[in-house]
Amino acid sequence: MKASLIFLAIDLIGTFIFAMSGAAVGIRRHFDIFGIFALAAATGIGGGIIRDLCIGATPPPGLTDPFYMLMILLAVVASICFRKTINRLELPALYLDAIGLGFFAAFGANKTYLLTGNLLLAILMGCVSGVGGGCIRDILSGSTPHIFSREIYATAAIAGACIELLGSTGIISPIYSTWIAIVVCSTMRILALHFRINLPRVRASSS
Amino acid sequence: MKASLIFLAIDLIGTFIFAMSGAAVGIRRHFDIFGIFALAAATGIGGGIIRDLCIGATPPPGLTDPFYMLMILLAVVASICFRKTINRLELPALYLDAIGLGFFAAFGANKTYLLTGNLLLAILMGCVSGVGGGCIRDILSGSTPHIFSREIYATAAIAGACIELLGSTGIISPIYSTWIAIVVCSTMRILALHFRINLPRVRASSS
Amino acid sequence: MKASLIFLAIDLIGTFIFAMSGAAVGIRRHFDIFGIFALAAATGIGGGIIRDLCIGATPPPGLTDPFYMLMILLAVVASICFRKTINRLELPALYLDAIGLGFFAAFGANKTYLLTGNLLLAILMGCVSGVGGGCIRDILSGSTPHIFSREIYATAAIAGACIELLGSTGIISPIYSTWIAIVVCSTMRILALHFRINLPRVRASSS
Repeated sequence: MKASLIFLAIDLIGTFIFAMSGAAVGIRRHFDIFGIFALAAATGIGGGIIRDLCIGATPPPGLTDPFYMLMILLAVVASICFRKTINRLELPALYLDAIGLGFFAAFGANKTYLLTGNLLLAILMGCVSGVGGGCIRDILSGSTPHIFSREIYATAAIAGACIELLGSTGIISPIYSTWIAIVVCSTMRILALHFRINLPRVRASSS
Repeated sequence: MKASLIFLAIDLIGTFIFAMSGAAVGIRRHFDIFGIFALAAATGIGGGIIRDLCIGATPPPGLTDPFYMLMILLAVVASICFRKTINRLELPALYLDAIGLGFFAAFGANKTYLLTGNLLLAILMGCVSGVGGGCIRDILSGSTPHIFSREIYATAAIAGACIELLGSTGIISPIYSTWIAIVVCSTMRILALHFRINLPRVRASSS
Repeated sequence: MKASLIFLAIDLIGTFIFAMSGAAVGIRRHFDIFGIFALAAATGIGGGIIRDLCIGATPPPGLTDPFYMLMILLAVVASICFRKTINRLELPALYLDAIGLGFFAAFGANKTYLLTGNLLLAILMGCVSGVGGGCIRDILSGSTPHIFSREIYATAAIAGACIELLGSTGIISPIYSTWIAIVVCSTMRILALHFRINLPRVRASSS
């Protein structure tokens, strides 16, 4: 019971953080109030909805549990109130996003493994939980999804998912695995941002 | 039995109207015959499919019941035959779309509440039923979804869904709620179109 | 047992071919290594995932069975190693894609009919299996989906699905239907490519 409460908290914190990133894009793109809320919601719970549809956990809690909508509403209000600050401090926003990534990767991998017992699926769904919302945000706001070309992002989510699963499968204590997963995933992403580390690219024509 | 027939009719009428709006975009974008049909289908049944996947009502009736495909086919044929008129009369087309929005919002909210008994989910799914198809149409045809920046649209769908749910939950008679929901939602949207009422926007930098 | 093995092989071959087409786009668009893999995966298994969600076959085997990920990995490695050749020989790549289309249309129609017994759904899902992955690839890489305006593509998938269903329903022997479906669908697409046959378009204003 306590563990499930901790995981609910983790999912809600991730939702809040990602919803803020969606709201920030909506404000910059001059969406109306509803548009900002819709983009925040799609970013905050979109990845989790894709995960829940794929593992057959319908209806997705992100759509049935009012706490998620509350988090999104809070994120929209906060984004509008502090939009001057958010616009000025672009890097802290990216750091926040990195922490949200860690929370979602750990939560998504854990939930999927508990429900299906399939390791491959759990890793993939940890990754989808983490990057899905941002991907939907980019498509809805008309840009090519960032995850395809930006600094180590989905790779960090996969690393976080794998560490979390060390706990779910009992290889290390599940008490620690979640926090280690969040810290490692978020740190990987923050370091990649800070030092502008990218995954290698392939030259289109190796002439 | 009679009520479910009325709701089937409501869903089919909504499908026809939205399929026409999809076909009209396909014609303007010079898609081939299949492309026009595919865009009409995605617009007509796309919102309902997302709703059905989210509430676990698979396979979605929009894909299994030939009546829906028939409506889409009729809409495509009508759009091609009357394309001169449709192009000339842009406003009536938007009015039709507003009526489709009302039908879908009421139907989606009612179906979701009957299946899941969750009010929040029913409101959200009424909204998704109404705006989902248009959103998919915009993404597939390469434009930023209109719902994010256009006159009161999803807001009207949410209002319609809420009124419909007054009936589903027995607060007002379900005989009236559906029609009131459709009229209120469609009227809100038409008035917003007519007087160009938009939801407030947030200035990106409040300097 | 033997039949299901043949169908698994058909699905895996289709996955490999489509993953290559996704990887090729990723390389051309200068995605990083993960981005190339993600686009290859979305193209290779995306259509099948949409189909599986629609028919309630969750979690989708494309996400749980390591063979699919292995196919995608092989396709990415092959695309990177032979990118010079792939770039030079554009037409052979399109021919390969046409063969993948046939494999997926037959597999998707057969799987859907076995699971649901609904003919309309089986035809639609055969089509979605065939064109869905390419459609997701186009949206994720920021271009309008090709299927809407290109030479006979989805039409060939529908033809393939219908022929496959002649076998599934016992009208012709299921031993032959799959191969006839694959050959007819792929040949239709290759002929359309070769002779630049398009479906008729509708002039936007017939003045």
